Amino acid sequence: MRILLCNDDGIDAPGLEALAREIKKIGDVTIVAPEHEQSAKGHAITISDPLRAKEFYKDLEFFGWAISGTPADCVKIAISAIMEEKPDLIISGINQGSNTGINIIYSGTVSAATEGRINNVPSFAVSLTSYNYKDFGPAARFAARFAKKYLSLNVPEAVFLNVNVPALSEGEIKGVKVTRQGKANYEEIFHRRFDPRGRAYFWMDGERVAEEDDPNIDEQAVRAGYISITPIHYDLTHYPTLEEFIRHPEDLI
Amino acid sequence: MRILLCNDDGIDAPGLEALAREIKKIGDVTIVAPEHEQSAKGHAITISDPLRAKEFYKDLEFFGWAISGTPADCVKIAISAIMEEKPDLIISGINQGSNTGINIIYSGTVSAATEGRINNVPSFAVSLTSYNYKDFGPAARFAARFAKKYLSLNVPEAVFLNVNVPALSEGEIKGVKVTRQGKANYEEIFHRRFDPRGRAYFWMDGERVAEEDDPNIDEQAVRAGYISITPIHYDLTHYPTLEEFIRHPEDLI
Repeated sequence: MRILLCNDDGIDAPGLEALAREIKKIGDVTIVAPEHEQSAKGHAITISDPLRAKEFYKDLEFFGWAISGTPADCVKIAISAIMEEKPDLIISGINQGSNTGINIIYSGTVSAATEGRINNVPSFAVSLTSYNYKDFGPAARFAARFAKKYLSLNVPEAVFLNVNVPALSEGEIKGVKVTRQGKANYEEIFHRRFDPRGRAYFWMDGERVAEEDDPNIDEQAVRAGYISITPIHYDLTHYPTLEEFIRHPEDLI
Repeated sequence: MRILLCNDDGIDAPGLEALAREIKKIGDVTIVAPEHEQSAKGHAITISDPLRAKEFYKDLEFFGWAISGTPADCVKIAISAIMEEKPDLIISGINQGSNTGINIIYSGTVSAATEGRINNVPSFAVSLTSYNYKDFGPAARFAARFAKKYLSLNVPEAVFLNVNVPALSEGEIKGVKVTRQGKANYEEIFHRRFDPRGRAYFWMDGERVAEEDDPNIDEQAVRAGYISITPIHYDLTHYPTLEEFIRHPEDLI
C-alpha cells in the first residue's frame, strides 16, 4: 500500500514523525509536508508564487519533501509531480490540537485530506486533541490500525474522514465513536496594542463558545474519552434550502 | 441597513468599488478588505501574526479599512473591533472570476461570506465569471437588488448564498437559476523550472476537467447565461455515511 503523509504543523513536527514510524510498518510511505507551520491556513493554495520542494533529512536520512506552501499544495504537488504512482491512501496529521466543530473549516490538516479526496484518493485527517500532550503513540497506532481497514470501509466517493484522538493513554481511551461535526465556535476578541512607533496592531484571541450538549458531536465524544470519527465531504450545497428556493423562485427575483 | 463589504481581490479592486457604489444607495456601508490580493486563500485566518488595520482612501476620501490579513480575518476584525454594531448583512465581492464547483473551497470570496454566517450575520458572495471582463455594473446592480430582498428570504441559520453572475450585459442575462455546487475541478500540472542559481521550482497550472452535463449546477447555469445562486453551509458532515457507520460500528474498530 502506497501511503502519502502530510500535515499542517510542518515537516519537522513530532506528530508527523510519530505517524510516519507507525505507518512505515504497514506500507510504502512518502512524506510531503509544508516547510513551515501552516496551522489555520484552511484550504489555501499557492497560485501567484512558485513552489519549492526541498529534500528534508532526519538523523542524516531522507525523511520527505518540504514544500514552500500550504497543506493543499503539498498534496497536489505530491500527486502531480513527486510520486510516480498515485497513493492508495493519504493520511494528514497527527495534528497537535483538536480539529472539531466549526474549526475544521480553518484546518490545514483537514484540508490536506480534502485535497486528497478531490484527487480521488481515500483520505483521512488525524488530530490529537491537546496543544500540550506530547504522546502521539496512541493516535499513531490507531491511525495505522485504521489505515489497514480504511480501504475496505466503503467510504463513498467524495467522502473522507476526520479523526480526533483524545490526549489519553491507550488504556484510558474508551473506544471509537462516529460523530457529526459540532457547531462549537470561538467568540473572537481582538487585543489592540501599539508598536514602538505608536502604530496600532491587533492580536486575535478567542474563547470557545459553549458546546451543544449532544454526545454525538465530535468535540463531546473526545471530551468523553472516545476517538471521534466524522465522515465529511466537500459538497457545500444546502439541499433543503435549494429545494425551498426551487419551490418559490419568485422570492428570489 | 448596515452592510459590511469584503472581498479577496484586495481593497483596491474594481469589483469592490463597483459593488460599494451600488450598495451605498441602499444602506450604510462599511468596507473592510484585505490590503493585498488574497485569492485562493480558502478559509485561512491569521493566528500567529498580529493584524494591521489601515485607513484606505480613494479620491482623497475615506473608502474603508485595509487589513494585513485574509478575507476571513477582515470579517472577524470588522465585527469584533471596527464596527460599532454588528452588520445586518455581509456581501463579499465582486470577485473577478467565477467561484463555482470545487473551486469554492479555495475561494477567499466565499470564505468571507462563510465567516459572516459563522458570526450569525446573513451573508452572500458575488463573483463575476470572467477574469477579463471589466463591466461589474450588472453584477453590482443585481447584488444591490438582491441585498434588499435577502433578509426576507428566510435563509436558515448557518446557510448562506454563493452568487455567480455571467460576464454579460443586463440585456443578455437570461435570469436567475437556483443551483447546486458542481463537481468541476482542475487537473493540476506543475511546470518545473530552474532559477538563475540552478535550483528547481514549480508553477502550479491546471485545466478544468469536463463538467457534469446538468443544467442545475452552478457552472452550467452561468455558461447558459443565468445568474447562479447556490445555497451553501459549513456543516461538512456527510450524514448518509454517518448513518451507515452507525449501523455497522464493527467495521470501524
